[in-house]
Amino acid sequence: MPARLFPSGDPTMFEEFWRGTGAAAEIVIPGWQTMSYFSDVGNVCWFLEPGLDQEVRRVHRLVGNAAVDGYHVVVGTGSTQLFMAALYALSPPAGAGAGAAPMSVVSTAPYYSSYPAVTDFLRSGLFRWAGDASSFRGDTYIELVCSPNNPDGAIREAVLSSAGSGVAVHDLAYYWPQYTAITKRADHDVMLFTVSKSTGHAGTRIGWALVKDRDVARKMAKFIELNTIGVSKDSQLRAAKVLRAVSDAYELPEAGDARRRRLFDYGRRKMVERWRMLRGAAAASGIFSLSEETSALCNFTKEMAVTNPAFAWLRCDREDVEDCAGFLRAHRILTRSGDQFGADPRYVRVSMLDRDDAYDIFVKRLSSLR
Amino acid sequence: MPARLFPSGDPTMFEEFWRGTGAAAEIVIPGWQTMSYFSDVGNVCWFLEPGLDQEVRRVHRLVGNAAVDGYHVVVGTGSTQLFMAALYALSPPAGAGAGAAPMSVVSTAPYYSSYPAVTDFLRSGLFRWAGDASSFRGDTYIELVCSPNNPDGAIREAVLSSAGSGVAVHDLAYYWPQYTAITKRADHDVMLFTVSKSTGHAGTRIGWALVKDRDVARKMAKFIELNTIGVSKDSQLRAAKVLRAVSDAYELPEAGDARRRRLFDYGRRKMVERWRMLRGAAAASGIFSLSEETSALCNFTKEMAVTNPAFAWLRCDREDVEDCAGFLRAHRILTRSGDQFGADPRYVRVSMLDRDDAYDIFVKRLSSLR
Repeated sequence: MPARLFPSGDPTMFEEFWRGTGAAAEIVIPGWQTMSYFSDVGNVCWFLEPGLDQEVRRVHRLVGNAAVDGYHVVVGTGSTQLFMAALYALSPPAGAGAGAAPMSVVSTAPYYSSYPAVTDFLRSGLFRWAGDASSFRGDTYIELVCSPNNPDGAIREAVLSSAGSGVAVHDLAYYWPQYTAITKRADHDVMLFTVSKSTGHAGTRIGWALVKDRDVARKMAKFIELNTIGVSKDSQLRAAKVLRAVSDAYELPEAGDARRRRLFDYGRRKMVERWRMLRGAAAASGIFSLSEETSALCNFTKEMAVTNPAFAWLRCDREDVEDCAGFLRAHRILTRSGDQFGADPRYVRVSMLDRDDAYDIFVKRLSSLR
Repeated sequence: MPARLFPSGDPTMFEEFWRGTGAAAEIVIPGWQTMSYFSDVGNVCWFLEPGLDQEVRRVHRLVGNAAVDGYHVVVGTGSTQLFMAALYALSPPAGAGAGAAPMSVVSTAPYYSSYPAVTDFLRSGLFRWAGDASSFRGDTYIELVCSPNNPDGAIREAVLSSAGSGVAVHDLAYYWPQYTAITKRADHDVMLFTVSKSTGHAGTRIGWALVKDRDVARKMAKFIELNTIGVSKDSQLRAAKVLRAVSDAYELPEAGDARRRRLFDYGRRKMVERWRMLRGAAAASGIFSLSEETSALCNFTKEMAVTNPAFAWLRCDREDVEDCAGFLRAHRILTRSGDQFGADPRYVRVSMLDRDDAYDIFVKRLSSLR
C-alpha cells in the first residue's frame, strides 16, 4: 500500500530509540507467570500490576508533568478504554431517574476525531456527543480537554466553567517533554496518559488514568471489569519495564551510555528536526501554512523549548483546494481531513511520528506541491 | 482474605502445569518490538498478530472442537470484549430507523451471570438484555449459547429457532478436552474462545472469535477498534507461544518429556481427581447435590470421557437453607449465588480451577457441613 502514509499517528519513530536500549527494556515472561485475573486485590483497581503503578508514579515525578500523590492509578487497554471508563464513571448511573437525559460530552473544536465516534458508537443512554464545547449551552456536561491538543497541538484549558454539574476529563497523552515544554504539574481530577505517545509502544495498548476521587476511580475500574475483565498483565509488565528504563536513564546515570538512552532527549531532537524539515517543505511548496512556533521554559529540561506537536495541523492555502485531504491523497499523501475534527476541510492532520523513511518521503512529496 | 475462596473462576490450577514447560512457553520481547498499532493491514482484523491466527487454527485442528476453514479469526481482550463486539455486530446499526427497538439478547437459565451485566451496563440503544431464552417471545434476538454451560456444565444447543431474524452466538470457552468429551467439530456462525479457560492464562486477556461471515467479522473488529484500538500485541504473542507449546506437545512428540507437557491430559487428570473429591465431599456431608455425571466418546482422545465442568453447580438440599451462598459464606466458602444466573438461590456456582491448596480447603470445609 504505497499510498498508506500517516493516516493513524502510529508512533513507529520511537523504534529506533528502543533498538538501542538492549536488556533494559526487554521483557521475559515464563509460561506460568501472571495467569490469574487478579493483580492487587486490595486496590480499587484490582487488576493493576503494582510494578506498573510504581513506575507510572515515578516517571511523573521525574518529568513533573502531573501530580501523583493522593491520586489513584487506573490502568486501561490504551487510553481509549479509559476515556470510555471516565464517561461511564462521570455520567449519572442507569438507575438514576428513568428517562433522564444522557450526559452531554463536549470538546472545543478542532477536537480529536475519536471523541465523537467513541462516545456514540454504542448509542449509550448514559452519555452522548454534544459537539463543540465553545458553543455548548447547559450546565451538566463532561468537557474533554486535550492538551497539547490532538490535532493542532494547542495548549488548552477547560473553556466551560465547572460551576454547574460540569466536569472535565484531561487527556494529557501528549504532555511529555518531546512534544512541549513542561510548564506546570497538572493536578486535574481525571488525567489520561498512554505509553503509545509517551514511549511509542502503541501495540502494547496500555494507558493509565490519574484519578483524584476514589469513587470515580472505583467506577472506572468497574467499567473495565465489565468491558474486558481487567487489562493484559503481560502488557502491564512490559509498560512497567519500559517506563523503568526511561526513568533509570535519567536517575541512574552512572552507566556510560545513559545519555544515549534518554528517551525525552532523543524524542525532542527528532521532533525538532522533523518540524524543521516540515516547515522547510511548507515554505518550499508555498501553498501550505502551519501554526506559529511557540516556546516556553521547560521545568524538566530547565531550558526554553519550542512546541513540537505529534501531529501537524496543515492548511492548504490554494484558493481552488477546498478539500485538502483529497488534494494530498491525489499526490499519494494520506492524511485525516479537518472535517473529522469538527473543523475546516482545508486543514488536515498529519502524523509526525512515522519511521524516518516514510517521513522523508512525505516531506519530499509535500515540498514538491505547487 | 481467608474467606475469599472461589468467587471468580480464576484458573490458577494450571500454573502447576506451566511451571513444567520451561522455555517452550516462555516469551521474550525486546524493547523495540510490536510498537505499531498494526499487525496485519490486509486482514479484516487488522490488529491480529499472524502468529496467533496460525496457532489458533492449529490447536482447533488438533483438538477437533471447531471448524476453522473459511472462518475469520477476530482477537479480543478476553472473550468478554468479543461478546460485546458480537452484540454490536449483530444488532441493527444506529442509523437503521430512528426509534428502532434495541435487539433482544437472551440465554437459557441458568446463564452466565456476566451476560446481563455486560449487555446492559452502558444502556446501549442497540441491544438490551431480555432474559431467559426459554420464555422469550419474538423473532428478532441474539441467543447466547454457552456449551458446556457456565454455570452448570450442561451441553447446550440453541433453543430458539433461527427462522426469524434471530441469530446465535456460541460461547465455547469450555469446549476443550479437559472439561468434556469433544463429540463434534462445532461450525456455528460465531464461536467464542479464550485462553483463560483453555490454557489457564486469564491474566493475558486474550480471546478469539471464529466468524463465518466477513461482514460480521469486520464489524466486530470495528467495535474493538473503537473500544480499545486493537488488542495487546504482547499478549497476542504470548498466547500464540502458549498455544504453540500445547500443539507441539501432541504433534512433535519426539522430545522425551512431551507426554508430561500435554496440557489436555494434565487438565483431564486434574479435573477427574477434583470431581472425585467433590462428589466424595458432597456424599460425606449429605446435604448437597450435584448434577449427574455424564460421559461420551471423545473424538480427540478416542476414549470415553466423563464431563468435568470448570464450575460445580451445587445445590443445598437442607430444607431450612434458602440462600446457599449465604450459608456457605458463613462457613467461609465464597461462591456465586444461583440468583445471579437467573436461577434458584438454593444453587451456587463453585470454581473447580483454583490452586490445589485452596481447592483442598474448600473440599474439606464442604465435607464437614451437616
